[in-house]
Amino acid sequence: MSPRRKTPASNPPGQPTPQTTDAPDASLLSTAAISVRWRDLDAFNHVNNSVFLTYLEEARLQWLKDVPGPWFDAHAMPVLAASSLNYRLPIEWPASLVVELRCTRVGGSSVTLAHRIRDANAPGRLYCDGDVTLVWMDPASGRSVPLPQSIRSACGA
Amino acid sequence: MSPRRKTPASNPPGQPTPQTTDAPDASLLSTAAISVRWRDLDAFNHVNNSVFLTYLEEARLQWLKDVPGPWFDAHAMPVLAASSLNYRLPIEWPASLVVELRCTRVGGSSVTLAHRIRDANAPGRLYCDGDVTLVWMDPASGRSVPLPQSIRSACGA
Amino acid sequence: MSPRRKTPASNPPGQPTPQTTDAPDASLLSTAAISVRWRDLDAFNHVNNSVFLTYLEEARLQWLKDVPGPWFDAHAMPVLAASSLNYRLPIEWPASLVVELRCTRVGGSSVTLAHRIRDANAPGRLYCDGDVTLVWMDPASGRSVPLPQSIRSACGA
Amino acid sequence: MSPRRKTPASNPPGQPTPQTTDAPDASLLSTAAISVRWRDLDAFNHVNNSVFLTYLEEARLQWLKDVPGPWFDAHAMPVLAASSLNYRLPIEWPASLVVELRCTRVGGSSVTLAHRIRDANAPGRLYCDGDVTLVWMDPASGRSVPLPQSIRSACGA
Repeated sequence: MSPRRKTPASNPPGQPTPQTTDAPDASLLSTAAISVRWRDLDAFNHVNNSVFLTYLEEARLQWLKDVPGPWFDAHAMPVLAASSLNYRLPIEWPASLVVELRCTRVGGSSVTLAHRIRDANAPGRLYCDGDVTLVWMDPASGRSVPLPQSIRSACGA
Repeated sequence: MSPRRKTPASNPPGQPTPQTTDAPDASLLSTAAISVRWRDLDAFNHVNNSVFLTYLEEARLQWLKDVPGPWFDAHAMPVLAASSLNYRLPIEWPASLVVELRCTRVGGSSVTLAHRIRDANAPGRLYCDGDVTLVWMDPASGRSVPLPQSIRSACGA
Repeated sequence: MSPRRKTPASNPPGQPTPQTTDAPDASLLSTAAISVRWRDLDAFNHVNNSVFLTYLEEARLQWLKDVPGPWFDAHAMPVLAASSLNYRLPIEWPASLVVELRCTRVGGSSVTLAHRIRDANAPGRLYCDGDVTLVWMDPASGRSVPLPQSIRSACGA
Repeated sequence: MSPRRKTPASNPPGQPTPQTTDAPDASLLSTAAISVRWRDLDAFNHVNNSVFLTYLEEARLQWLKDVPGPWFDAHAMPVLAASSLNYRLPIEWPASLVVELRCTRVGGSSVTLAHRIRDANAPGRLYCDGDVTLVWMDPASGRSVPLPQSIRSACGA
């Protein structure tokens, strides 16, 4: 819910400082280029908060598409279990974004992927950080299953 | 990213237990009824993870619309600063949902609103919980401003 | 692309009169209630033009869901072949809408469904009319197949 | 509503042939590159019919943004009055698209823009054609106003 305002040049001061959830030294999994669409804006003339999750999803699926080896089958599919986003700056249209993904945790059935959404033309301009947790589950049983080896390897674990 | 599967009758076992962020005894701010649309589904045939934020936004704005007294002007507008969602169960189409909002923190410039997304026809069926933080800011300066009294009162603080 | 403006009480004068494509005396197939969501708005503060197709889709699928008898299988699925919409008045938030569907043509493999999107609280307030054409196709071959008898019957043909 | 199917190599035979609404020899106004997002898909695993209008809107606004001279002010804003789309082939993810816009009619208050959505990597692959009509209106009165000279010039009239 980003009201119309001049976009400040730095991150908004005075707001509760969210705990940074990414690990800057975790190795980069992937970088995805995203073009903001005018329809991503809402009535406050900034990219709507829900669309940030669409940007992350696009980056995540582009990464998964290129993971070597099988990462899902009929009995092991990734499900989004949790998301945590810090909205640092409003995004306007038009804009070119870069979404960076890093793996910050590898569990028995799940991984945590941290993200940074930056401006492609001003990398120091950080729009959003945070992370999401993916769990691999068997759709038939609704139970978690072991993390595929391909994902474990891609995450360097 | 919810793959096609039979929806389990209870919350998925075996996944990392997210910390419950709502406070069951914080008083209820509002309850909004939401109808799932077919377009909310994605290619996995479940409501897309980004649409959960749209449901929360709808509930939040319906609540704000009815808050007695002014809650924004040209120099004090609410901005979403953070969101944290736990996806407990996939949502299918058609479905009728209820979004409950509770205020769990009142700060000098911000509030934290916890949510629960339930099935309107099976209230024990919890699809999502978590919370979002709203900060009131001056669009011109990009600085936070004091929380409007109307919001403070609505939140019982 | 509806700029911010006071919504006129009647249909906009002076714009090219689109040919009305619905047939007022074709029998009503279905009526669907739709609640506008705040996210349906775009940066001009009116429901975005693309969302009108989502409203039609929701009404159409609610109708299809209740058609007696089978209306699709692995070798006969409906595909949207064409859409034609006349945007008569901008839609604001909040609003309650009614989508009326009528069948105006039954072909060997296809049907044409005319629509009217009205205000639920002011039925004389017509937001949109037009029609869409659905063709039943075999996904494997990409060829059209005979219209299912259930659809033919539902359309009174 | 595009069911899962192998995408045929040519346009679907056997469906009612929609009248082609573009004019191949009208001069090209603009060409926009669009990347399909995974979220553009619906539960049938193809780009949802409503998203085609979002692609057209993106191309149209990128064009308008670069029109020399003023094309709107507080008393003259473009409103979408009508849209007409022929869905020729389903679009999958990932895909790179090109949207071509041509002006096919210039009126006193309005223009008609024809479009073609093609595959960036296979220009002979036509996903959609059709057109939309934009009317310039005074938001205060709801009446149409003269077409801005900048638009008239950009359309070669």
